[in-house]
Amino acid sequence: MPQLDLTATSLDLTRTICDIPSVSGDEGVLADAIDTAIRALPHLEVYRDGDTIVARTQLGRSQRVVIAGHIDTVPINGNVPTRDIAIDGEPVLWGRGTVDMKAGVAVQLKLAAELTDPRIDITWMWYDHEEVDADLNGLTRLSRTRPDLFAGDFAILGEPSNGQVEGGCNGNMRAIVRTRGVRAHSARAWIGRNAIHAAAPVLARLAEYRPRDVPVDGLVYREGMNAVRIGGGVAGNVIPDLCEVEVNYRFAPSRTAEEAQLHVRDVFDGFDVDVVDVAAGARPGLDAPLAQEFVASVGGQAHPKYGWTDVARFSAMGVPAVNYGPGDPHLAHHDEERVPHAQIEDVERGLRAWLSAR
Amino acid sequence: MPQLDLTATSLDLTRTICDIPSVSGDEGVLADAIDTAIRALPHLEVYRDGDTIVARTQLGRSQRVVIAGHIDTVPINGNVPTRDIAIDGEPVLWGRGTVDMKAGVAVQLKLAAELTDPRIDITWMWYDHEEVDADLNGLTRLSRTRPDLFAGDFAILGEPSNGQVEGGCNGNMRAIVRTRGVRAHSARAWIGRNAIHAAAPVLARLAEYRPRDVPVDGLVYREGMNAVRIGGGVAGNVIPDLCEVEVNYRFAPSRTAEEAQLHVRDVFDGFDVDVVDVAAGARPGLDAPLAQEFVASVGGQAHPKYGWTDVARFSAMGVPAVNYGPGDPHLAHHDEERVPHAQIEDVERGLRAWLSAR
Repeated sequence: MPQLDLTATSLDLTRTICDIPSVSGDEGVLADAIDTAIRALPHLEVYRDGDTIVARTQLGRSQRVVIAGHIDTVPINGNVPTRDIAIDGEPVLWGRGTVDMKAGVAVQLKLAAELTDPRIDITWMWYDHEEVDADLNGLTRLSRTRPDLFAGDFAILGEPSNGQVEGGCNGNMRAIVRTRGVRAHSARAWIGRNAIHAAAPVLARLAEYRPRDVPVDGLVYREGMNAVRIGGGVAGNVIPDLCEVEVNYRFAPSRTAEEAQLHVRDVFDGFDVDVVDVAAGARPGLDAPLAQEFVASVGGQAHPKYGWTDVARFSAMGVPAVNYGPGDPHLAHHDEERVPHAQIEDVERGLRAWLSAR
Repeated sequence: MPQLDLTATSLDLTRTICDIPSVSGDEGVLADAIDTAIRALPHLEVYRDGDTIVARTQLGRSQRVVIAGHIDTVPINGNVPTRDIAIDGEPVLWGRGTVDMKAGVAVQLKLAAELTDPRIDITWMWYDHEEVDADLNGLTRLSRTRPDLFAGDFAILGEPSNGQVEGGCNGNMRAIVRTRGVRAHSARAWIGRNAIHAAAPVLARLAEYRPRDVPVDGLVYREGMNAVRIGGGVAGNVIPDLCEVEVNYRFAPSRTAEEAQLHVRDVFDGFDVDVVDVAAGARPGLDAPLAQEFVASVGGQAHPKYGWTDVARFSAMGVPAVNYGPGDPHLAHHDEERVPHAQIEDVERGLRAWLSAR
C-alpha cells in the first residue's frame, strides 16, 4: 500500500496522491492510504464510511469549520503520472486530478497533520464519488447515516477557484422540452405533421433568452439557459413525430428549485416540459461572521461560483459554505489539467494563517 | 427449386411469389424460378444479369414498350407467408410484397407467358435490389452493361398506384444544414456559443416554408421540404458546438437536380448546406403517343406520382415512363401490407387489353 508522508510539502503530497489513480469507484487505495496516515495523528478523531474519511479535532472550541475535498477524479486520459512542466517560466504540475481536486486535498491533509492546536475546531472530510451521480456521492451517504458530522459554523470546499474565495453556487436544472407530430412518408408530407419544425419556437425562445445577472448577498451570479442536446428523426424518408430539446438552466441561488422549474415552464409555455433533475444553488453565506473573517484573512474579495458544487449541500444543511482551492476551474476535467506550484502554496498559506490566528 | 405455373391466375401467382422470400440481397431463389419459367416460353428472348431477368418479344413491331418490376422486398416482419383476409367483405391478400410489388410482377409474368402476339413489341424486366442503395439496383447495373435493353417508346413500372396511372415522379434530395458554435462548460455559457440555438432560424424557415404545387404536362406535383432528422449535443453540461438538420426536399419534375440544389441553398442562405444526394424526378411523359393511348385504354385519368421511382431512370434515358400497378402505395413497407384481389385483376385486365388491342 502506498504511504503518505504528511510532513512533505503540499506540492509533493499533490504529486503523490495524483499518482495514485482514484477515478470514481476506484478510490479504495487512496482512501486506505489517507486513512492510515490520518489515524497515526493522535489529535484527530477518525471516522470512516466506505471511502469517505472524517477526521475531527475535539478541542472544545466555541466554533467549528468543516473543510472538505473529494478524492475521486474523472477518468484518466494519458495524463497520469503527473509531470513537472513550466509555463511562461513558472513551474506547474500537470496531470489528472491536479486541479480537480487533489492539490486542494493535499493542502488539507498537510494542515490536518500540522495544525494540532487550531483556533477553532476543524472537521476534515475527504470523500468519494463526487464526479458521478449524486446518489453515489460519499457526502450523500454520510448525510443520511451521520448528519451530526456536518455540524459547523462554516464550511470550506477545496474545489478549484484559482486560490480565491468563491461563494455559494448557482443552481442547476435539466429539463426536456418535447414537440410531437404525426409520422408520414416524406413524399407525402402533407399527411403528417413535422415535430422538428414544431421545435422552431423552442429554439427561438432559447436564442432570444437574456439570462439575468443576479446580486445575492453582495455577489453577482450570472445565470444561463441553454440547449445542451437536440434529437429527432425516424428515417431519411419519414416525417418525424417527436423532437426533444434538453435544456440546462443554471440559476442564481436566490431562486429556489421550485421557482426555477416554474420559470422554465413559463419560458416554454405551451410546450411539454419534463424536468429531469434540479439541484438548488447555495447563497454565498458571506454574512456569517466566520465567513467574513475568512475572506478578510485570505486577503481578497469573494467571487461568485457559477458551477454547482457540494457547497450547496452544506448550505441546504444550514452551514454557510465557500469554495477555496488551487487550480483554474476551466482546466478541471481537461486533458491538460495542471496547477501552478505557487497556487498550491498560496492556498496552504491562506488556510494555515486563518486557522492558526489568535 | 420452387416452380412457377404461369398459367395460374395472377392472384395465385402473387401468392406463390410472395411466399418465396426475396428480401433485397436474397433474390436468387425467386430469380431462378422466374428464369426457368420464362425460358420455357419460345416467344421470348431471355437475358440474365445477376438476379435481373430481361425477356423480349422480337416480332418486328414498329414500337416497343418496356414493362418492369422489381422482385425484392423490404425485410419481412412476421408477414410471410401470405394470408387471405377480408376487409369490409372484400377479399384481400395480406403479406410482405403483396403491394410492393409482387402483385405487379405476378401480372407481368402471367401476361409475358400469355401474350405471344402483342400489338407492340414488349421488353419485360424483373430486377433485384430496388429497395436498397441505388448503386446496388439491378437496373443501375444493367444500364451500364446493356443500355441497349432499355430501348423503347414507352415504359411502364408496375409500382403500386392503386391500379391507376401515375405519371412521372417528384425528384428527391437530401441535404445537411449545419450550424456551428464554440464549446464551453454550461455553467459558464457566455464563454461559448450555442450551435443548437443557432439552428433556430433553420427550423423557422422550414416551418414557414410553403411548398409549391407545380403543374407539369397536365399533372400537378406537390412538393415538400422537411427536416427528417436533427441532432446536436456533447454532454449535459457542455454548450454544443455543432447542430445538424437533415432536410429532405421532394421537388417537381420540372425542376432539375441543379435547380433543386440552388433552391435549397437559397432557402438556407447564410448557412452551411451540404447536399448528400439528389435524384431528379421524371416528367409524366404523357405527351408520348403510346402513353396517351395507354391512359385512354386503361380508362382513366393519370395522376402524379409523389414518391421517387425507377420511372426517373427511364425518363433520364429518354423513355417516357409511368407507374401502373395494384396496391395502395401508403401500404408499401407497412407491416399490414395487403392488396385487394380485385386490384390485381383490374391491372391484369388493363394491361392485357392495351397490349392485345389492334
